[in-house]
Amino acid sequence: MSSFVVALDVGGTAMKGGLVTRSGEIALTRRRDTPRERGPAAVVQAIRSFIDDLAAAGGGLPAGVGLAVPGLVTPEAALYSANIGWRNVPAEDLVPLDVPVMLGHDVRTGGLAESVLGAGREISEFLFLPIGTGIAGAVVVHGEPYGGSAGWGGEIGHIPVFPDGEPCACGQIGCLETYASASAVSRRYSARASSPATAEQVAALTAAGDPVATGVWNDAVEALSLALATYTLLLDPAAIVLGGGLSEAGHLLSDPLAERLQKRLTFREAPPIRPAALGVNAGMLGAALLGWRAAGHPDAGSTWSLDVLKSPPVA
Amino acid sequence: MSSFVVALDVGGTAMKGGLVTRSGEIALTRRRDTPRERGPAAVVQAIRSFIDDLAAAGGGLPAGVGLAVPGLVTPEAALYSANIGWRNVPAEDLVPLDVPVMLGHDVRTGGLAESVLGAGREISEFLFLPIGTGIAGAVVVHGEPYGGSAGWGGEIGHIPVFPDGEPCACGQIGCLETYASASAVSRRYSARASSPATAEQVAALTAAGDPVATGVWNDAVEALSLALATYTLLLDPAAIVLGGGLSEAGHLLSDPLAERLQKRLTFREAPPIRPAALGVNAGMLGAALLGWRAAGHPDAGSTWSLDVLKSPPVA
Repeated sequence: MSSFVVALDVGGTAMKGGLVTRSGEIALTRRRDTPRERGPAAVVQAIRSFIDDLAAAGGGLPAGVGLAVPGLVTPEAALYSANIGWRNVPAEDLVPLDVPVMLGHDVRTGGLAESVLGAGREISEFLFLPIGTGIAGAVVVHGEPYGGSAGWGGEIGHIPVFPDGEPCACGQIGCLETYASASAVSRRYSARASSPATAEQVAALTAAGDPVATGVWNDAVEALSLALATYTLLLDPAAIVLGGGLSEAGHLLSDPLAERLQKRLTFREAPPIRPAALGVNAGMLGAALLGWRAAGHPDAGSTWSLDVLKSPPVA
Repeated sequence: MSSFVVALDVGGTAMKGGLVTRSGEIALTRRRDTPRERGPAAVVQAIRSFIDDLAAAGGGLPAGVGLAVPGLVTPEAALYSANIGWRNVPAEDLVPLDVPVMLGHDVRTGGLAESVLGAGREISEFLFLPIGTGIAGAVVVHGEPYGGSAGWGGEIGHIPVFPDGEPCACGQIGCLETYASASAVSRRYSARASSPATAEQVAALTAAGDPVATGVWNDAVEALSLALATYTLLLDPAAIVLGGGLSEAGHLLSDPLAERLQKRLTFREAPPIRPAALGVNAGMLGAALLGWRAAGHPDAGSTWSLDVLKSPPVA
């Protein structure tokens, strides 16, 4: 049997690929653009070529292939993605090799990696919450990401935290995402200050005491505290694991968030808030776990060294 | 082996007991007051006596005992209940017989019965939401009620649906329970109308077009629609199963709730809302399932006839 799997994390902008050995060594990482603007068939073709090239770089047939993809997905097929535009693409259409394949939902696959290898390694019940352009979460139950009855779970970015609040791009009112995503922080500051700024810049302005930035930042923290209070009361997680671009603000985000979360909860302790461990590699590493599961090693990852956490980001 | 288990649902006001056979026949049901005002030791003694008397009525040693109790609970011990006032009561202290015992959380044990025998019989992912004096839910995941990392999950009654809303008795702000429990509906109507009314009477007044009652009822429906939108987005249930006293209002509650829930959700379908099937017997029937599990029959209930649904309420 081959000694590696091909792992691919397919995002709307970029694809992150890697070769990962049975013992958890990341032999190679690569990154390519996702040709979304050329339509779903072009994306499927780009995925096939990428997998072919990664396998060739590995010098042989991989033991399996794991893919993290957005939208609605089963282990055997990518059912639907508004972002990419595909419908009902079976795994064999995505993978040009005759090897076992397993697909996973992008955010949940990242959550799987955090569960097995990362910030959730010692616990089995937690929320993995990457805060980026949008917000979606991986609801980790008994150590495995949970998608609900049809795979549409984890949409914490669209829960109504302010029921009479601002309209969200999704058409709903007062969604978490419309206050607390990186793009929301940037958009809301830029509108108030009449001057464009990225979320990273808004964080820096907040740290420097800028009142407009501080107001926008506080709204994001308040929205997150409401969403996490709700999550905590419903699902009693052992921890909240924050990831994504906005979480790079570190204590500027996590300290006031922890404080407001505890204030919202009077009859129970808030769970600890901790940073994700795997960064932008979480999806690719989760895809590697899926690849090894497909290859007949459901326990893959349990013996991997923590060195995997020190792997460089996909170049 | 004996042909029955003793099942006991211990509430803050009353205890509902029963004898249930291996094939799901409810041989006997009885009800006694819970002597809560006399302290936790008296409640423990009352439980022991009740179990003794039920077993004697069965004419022999039961195959097992199942108990549904409030608060924090493991299968082996009642750890804590603010309502009853006990701490760390092992199962053997509650059961005077030398037979296998299993404990369960009261609402989750009702959810187990609805999952195995009731409104969730055909599905595995759902919310069981009994709306009574208070509101708590059973989050059913893969067919089993889920309590989270330490057993504190399911507290949907205290999620902040209106973050700047009315104070809740728990000390938090804008909790679902403070708008939508049966006692909240009664309390909020009585305050506005300066005339006391039960939730049942408020429902009747709403049906008759009374404007004050209608306002209070609409607030309850709105609060529930927000909580259920959140639940749906997070956990993608196949159904919402409504139980408890307020659900006896039937379509007066479920029709506007279904409509507002769908309005809150723009990019996905709302799950169907359906009535619970087991009524006030859910907890006792769930306790019977636990008793049979303790006795070594984890599949108990799967073959029980739907006749169990027609069992009379505990007298």
